[in-house]
This record gives sequence, C-alpha cells and structure tokens, in this order.
Amino acid sequence: MKALIDAGVVKFGRFVLSSGIESPFYVDLRRALGHPDLVKWVVSGYLSALSRLKFDVLLGVATGGIPYASILGYLLQKPFGYVRAGAKGYGTMQAVEGADVAGLAAVVVDDVLTTGNSLINAIKAVREAGGEVVGALVFLDREQCGSQNVRRETGVEVFSVYKMRELLETLKPYIGEGHYRAAVEYLAKWSC
Amino acid sequence: MKALIDAGVVKFGRFVLSSGIESPFYVDLRRALGHPDLVKWVVSGYLSALSRLKFDVLLGVATGGIPYASILGYLLQKPFGYVRAGAKGYGTMQAVEGADVAGLAAVVVDDVLTTGNSLINAIKAVREAGGEVVGALVFLDREQCGSQNVRRETGVEVFSVYKMRELLETLKPYIGEGHYRAAVEYLAKWSC
Repeated sequence: MKALIDAGVVKFGRFVLSSGIESPFYVDLRRALGHPDLVKWVVSGYLSALSRLKFDVLLGVATGGIPYASILGYLLQKPFGYVRAGAKGYGTMQAVEGADVAGLAAVVVDDVLTTGNSLINAIKAVREAGGEVVGALVFLDREQCGSQNVRRETGVEVFSVYKMRELLETLKPYIGEGHYRAAVEYLAKWSC
Repeated sequence: MKALIDAGVVKFGRFVLSSGIESPFYVDLRRALGHPDLVKWVVSGYLSALSRLKFDVLLGVATGGIPYASILGYLLQKPFGYVRAGAKGYGTMQAVEGADVAGLAAVVVDDVLTTGNSLINAIKAVREAGGEVVGALVFLDREQCGSQNVRRETGVEVFSVYKMRELLETLKPYIGEGHYRAAVEYLAKWSC
C-alpha cells in the first residue's frame, strides 16, 4: 500500500481536480503504470471484481481506462475496446473503438471515479453503439457521489475495487495526522 | 491470416487515409481488439520483435498504440506509459503519461506506420521528457516511406513485425486479383 504513495499514485496536500473541485488528496492511477508490481496488484484487484460480472466485452474509458481494459481483455481472452472522448469542439461526442458492442453485454472500465461524468458519457456512447451496459468498474471510487450520479443518469451500477475511505484507513500509518484528518473531513462533506 | 480480413483489420477497395492520401487498402489494427485470437497473435508478433531490443520502458502512441504497449508492458513486467496527442488547437503538443522516462531507454510502440508523423511527434515528446528513444516498434509498416521519414527526422530506427508487401503476399489467396494488383502498383509508387 505504501507503494501507492511512493509511486505518486496517491498524494496528500491541496489539489484542484479537473472538475474544478478542491481536494486534500489526489489519485492518479496512471502513475502506477511505471511500476510493474503495482500494475500487477491493480490488475489482480480488477480481476477479482470482474469475476462477479457476466459480460461479453470490456470497454476502457479514454485514456486512463484503456491500459487496464486492454490487459484485462487480454488475460480473460475477451473482446475489448475503448470509448474515446471526441475532438474538442464537438461537445461530448464519444466513439467506441475496437470491439463491436452491438447486442453485447458490456462492462465499462475506468481507473478513478470522481463525479461520474466520464463514465456517464462512456455508457451513453456504448448504448448509442447498440451495446447493453451491464456494469461499470473502477479501481478507486473517490466517494464523491460519482456512483450515485452514474446510477441516477444511466441506471448502471458502478463496482469499485477500493473506496477512498477504505484506502485512507490502509494508508493512515504512512501519512501525517493532518493529511488524514483533512481527507476524512473532506469525504464527510459529500452526502448523496 | 484470413482472420485479418474477416475481422475488418485489412480492407481492400478505395480509401482516403487521415493524411489525405488515397489508398487501395486500409489497415485498422484496432479492429483486432474485438477478436481474442487475433490479439494473441498480434501480441506474440510484437513480443518476438521486442526480444531483440534492450529497453527500460515502453510507450504506446495514443490511441492505437496504448492497448498493445500496455499488454506488452504487463507481460514483460516493464514500466510502460503512453504519449498522447495534445488538445486540438495546441498544435503538436504531446505529453508522456504513466511511467517516468527521464534517463531511461524507451521503445515507442504504435500499431500501423504510414507517414511516420505520429511516431516522429511521439519520439520528440519522449525526448523532451528526458527519455532516450532506442527504437520504435510498429506491427505493420505500410511501406510508404514512414520508416525513412522517422529515421531522417529523429535518427530512430523503426522495427516492424510485418511489412505491407509481405502481408499482401500472404493475403493474396483471399483477395481478388484486381485488389492485389492495385495494391502492388500502389506500393510501387512509393520510393524513398
């Protein structure tokens, strides 16, 4: 677990997320890609979560979800692909690349869940391409109402390998009391 | 090999490539992602080509190179990441995501080589991030002066698992004589 901090996957301090929200912690699962042992651990987490789902095809959400969806698809010998965000200026246009999804049970894979907006757009894109989205899977749910937003907007359930509070308890011995307390208080502010 | 045609990875007809060039064939390796057996075959091709290179880190070129670089990094237990094209409007701005590259020997991975422009941009981005690019690897070289362009612009050698002429000979039994002849004549026009 400490490796997550050493690799810069989880940082504590003051951050402004891409959604504009301020946060006392920052999670960037892409940083894990540089550490083969971390990748292995993350992939095994995804694999056990996936074992509870029945699906035909895996779709990574660009770009953070693509590496993991690809590795999982390869290991499970399942068709896979990805949903990419459209060119800027075309609004939320997204496109499904790789595997066909029409008439198939699809799981949408992303790395970190915050507001749920990327997942919502990806789910809509898969549906527009004729796929049935049977679930969404993220490695870490930051517990900021993302799963509730996704369920409300799409009806799709989001599964997560870890939830932020859970991760925070495990990381507690490695971070300062101030950072821990700031994170706990921040998470308590979100009620859905 | 016929599976490449059945899956729509290789198509014969009349196409306009994203570079504006007209072509009697079209290769889209992303289509392979939907076919686990094809993915396995493509990955094994990449693996044997990579076994001849010494490197620390693998970098996929967004987006087509990301799935394969990720699977290869996972299988070889090497750090990996990707080079993404910057937002439209920012010109050729690219950014390296995932593994750190500073001071490391990097191999840049893409799916299909045409003009070499994406590879050239990716190589420059890796160098700007402090990495030493020891080679570029693509699955298919369309043999349209891409490898020569990359070498001239960057000094980096491009390795390929297949070259288009080679692929064409193998696919000859499965395509019409007209398509075969058009492709051969088209390739003959490119001299570097």
